[in-house]
Amino acid sequence: MNANAIIPRVSLVGAGPGDPELITLKAIKTIQRADVILYDALINDEILDYAPQNCEKIYVGKRAGRHSLPQEEINQLLVEYAFTMGHVVRLKGGDPFVFGRGHEEMTYAESFGIPVDIVPGISSAIAVPELCKVPLTSRGLSESFWVVTGTTKNGQVSDDLYHAARSNATVVILMGMNKLQEIAKIFAREGKEDKPVAIVQNGSLPRQKVGVGTVSTIAEIVKEKKLGSPAIIIIGDVVQVLAEKVFIDKTKESWTETLSSRYF
Amino acid sequence: MNANAIIPRVSLVGAGPGDPELITLKAIKTIQRADVILYDALINDEILDYAPQNCEKIYVGKRAGRHSLPQEEINQLLVEYAFTMGHVVRLKGGDPFVFGRGHEEMTYAESFGIPVDIVPGISSAIAVPELCKVPLTSRGLSESFWVVTGTTKNGQVSDDLYHAARSNATVVILMGMNKLQEIAKIFAREGKEDKPVAIVQNGSLPRQKVGVGTVSTIAEIVKEKKLGSPAIIIIGDVVQVLAEKVFIDKTKESWTETLSSRYF
Repeated sequence: MNANAIIPRVSLVGAGPGDPELITLKAIKTIQRADVILYDALINDEILDYAPQNCEKIYVGKRAGRHSLPQEEINQLLVEYAFTMGHVVRLKGGDPFVFGRGHEEMTYAESFGIPVDIVPGISSAIAVPELCKVPLTSRGLSESFWVVTGTTKNGQVSDDLYHAARSNATVVILMGMNKLQEIAKIFAREGKEDKPVAIVQNGSLPRQKVGVGTVSTIAEIVKEKKLGSPAIIIIGDVVQVLAEKVFIDKTKESWTETLSSRYF
Repeated sequence: MNANAIIPRVSLVGAGPGDPELITLKAIKTIQRADVILYDALINDEILDYAPQNCEKIYVGKRAGRHSLPQEEINQLLVEYAFTMGHVVRLKGGDPFVFGRGHEEMTYAESFGIPVDIVPGISSAIAVPELCKVPLTSRGLSESFWVVTGTTKNGQVSDDLYHAARSNATVVILMGMNKLQEIAKIFAREGKEDKPVAIVQNGSLPRQKVGVGTVSTIAEIVKEKKLGSPAIIIIGDVVQVLAEKVFIDKTKESWTETLSSRYF
């Protein structure tokens, strides 16, 4: 075998929620061995800098509603680059298997006999509330958490939300800002108008913005604070801790923002 | 101010699911600045090696059912060491806020005016299925996932499990091996005897063990394969991919174990 022979390989790598230090050691080592990187929107430049000098970096980013490249085309690029260039790193925000279609990319590449390995990433579903000091579970308040996407295949709100609204689980909704009013209605119908809700935009980054309210007031808070995507929605009693104070790590210095008590 | 003055500080740091490379860069940098480390069971020695030479490393580990130190004592140690030694790193398996009582530790330390920062970790709830190539969500199969602990405050199975069993969510249960039969009964009562179930013990480590069955057969599989804690339980259609093949990363080389087709 020629020493320069191309060995096709795909790594699906999670880049974490945004803060470039919230990437794993395994992810860094994998990027350092990439021949090509296909990366999404919201990937920090500092992370791309781990790539070798001769590594090709290709933007295939998607944002809610605006697909730069259709998924089928990304799948094909993975396979083409693996066969022509060797080790392809598919770099995705958060964790590659949390609503990231990473599993589809893996299945497609494997159907061509290309070995695929997966490097989990810090998911914003857990880390973003956590960095706001909100635990998704807390003894006496919540014994479970439920993570659901606001953007399902058919464009509808997931039926699972109706079950979630009936439970005591903390509910975390990713990519749900466009469906916020519909989601609030589902919870209100279960008599949970006063259930605390937090919205965190650009979680883990210095430009992070937080809004706190209840099922019945959150739409107004979003308007008032001009909150938009990318954001996560957290519904549950654990959010109450945010009613007192929001801690934000801003330019490496912690400061405390006392929210108006009128939200509760 | 004296240059040697002690500045109390606590960092709650997630060490990830077990593989020492599945730790974040931020966690490594935080450990490198520790004066004391209080660490749990299941923390890899390679991770402790990031600590400075003069850093004191104290084991306060807990395993399901056997508490080496009561939680109250850990809380007190955090505060005492912060005031007497300076920067205390509380190193916890997985993510510090996922059923880890990290929030209690944070609240206790903050009540003494000690600044607490949090470094999220890779949670086994997401990463362990992922490393077995099982996505918690998949278009057409599951639109959400529900993470619940088998070990609640009062020793009962969480009521949330009844709602979860009625939904289409993939259900991930941490620390639930002692309650497996009770959990299976809840799903069977909803007519889900044939719902696929996987159990992964020591996920992400070379000694990882996997068992795959259904709600009605899983107890038998556990006995047959001698599966025990620490393990996670995954219930949902997404587990079906494991029916065909289980990929295990063993001593850095991938190999494929074809499971007997009789499980499905």
